[in-house]
Amino acid sequence: MDGVLANVYNQFIAMHAAEFGKVLKLKEINGVPESEVFPNVQQYINSPGFFRYAPVIKDSQRVLKLLNERYKIFIVSAAMEFPNSLSEKQAWLNEHFPFITWRQIVFCGSKEIIDTDIMIDDHFKNLDFFNGETILFTQPHNVFAPDGNHKRVKTWLQIEEMLS
Amino acid sequence: MDGVLANVYNQFIAMHAAEFGKVLKLKEINGVPESEVFPNVQQYINSPGFFRYAPVIKDSQRVLKLLNERYKIFIVSAAMEFPNSLSEKQAWLNEHFPFITWRQIVFCGSKEIIDTDIMIDDHFKNLDFFNGETILFTQPHNVFAPDGNHKRVKTWLQIEEMLS
Repeated sequence: MDGVLANVYNQFIAMHAAEFGKVLKLKEINGVPESEVFPNVQQYINSPGFFRYAPVIKDSQRVLKLLNERYKIFIVSAAMEFPNSLSEKQAWLNEHFPFITWRQIVFCGSKEIIDTDIMIDDHFKNLDFFNGETILFTQPHNVFAPDGNHKRVKTWLQIEEMLS
Repeated sequence: MDGVLANVYNQFIAMHAAEFGKVLKLKEINGVPESEVFPNVQQYINSPGFFRYAPVIKDSQRVLKLLNERYKIFIVSAAMEFPNSLSEKQAWLNEHFPFITWRQIVFCGSKEIIDTDIMIDDHFKNLDFFNGETILFTQPHNVFAPDGNHKRVKTWLQIEEMLS
């Protein structure tokens, strides 16, 4: 969800700018872990509204709606670490992805017991131990990392091309 | 979680009694679907506090704590159908099972993408399509149903005996 559907970097940059008066550019962010770029990232994530008002990643709504007709889609979010995020994430999904039903939503701590054919994720910690096909979604924190055994995509248009 | 750790029948019976002035006995409930026994069950489940104040099923705390030291335990709850239940279920688990960390909690709609070695559940709809070992936890709604391919247990003492 975060970093694939929800543009959390937009939130980080906006909140960092509000706090420090400087809008970080992608070249300053690319390849650096979130916690190094944004020293107060934990505080941002725990702020009310952080998940609720995150912008949607470009083209994800249209493409996911398309794929939802051809695949059995599940939205799996490692949400448990942030207890307040659950209701915000639910409301966010209902607003922006109304075609995703409650049967298709999974909020977990770890993704290690998730068993599907394909996983799309921006974190190696989720993809590396997954048994199925893995698609790495490019985000600033992983942009310079080697792809490993994963297929890397930079946009939802590439996912559309790959899966439809 | 419900019907294995959380005693939801206790809640059903209490709320039914409050509404209709009659405390149902087990012999009136056994073998009948929840929705037939309790015509307003959906209303009860959606009431604030329903999940938060459900009693704990006997011996589940002690035995799960024991098993948590020997197994990798996940609490998987089909919570998404009831959006208000998420925060109540989180708080309930934190209170009664403080040794279960956020990494071990999964709230989902369907359990069909859950992949573990063993599943303990009171519903055939979750157990029947599961690939691992299945343990059917007896609850009034399933008490007269044939066990099928599942091992049936009536108490957490039996689970302790089986798995420790």
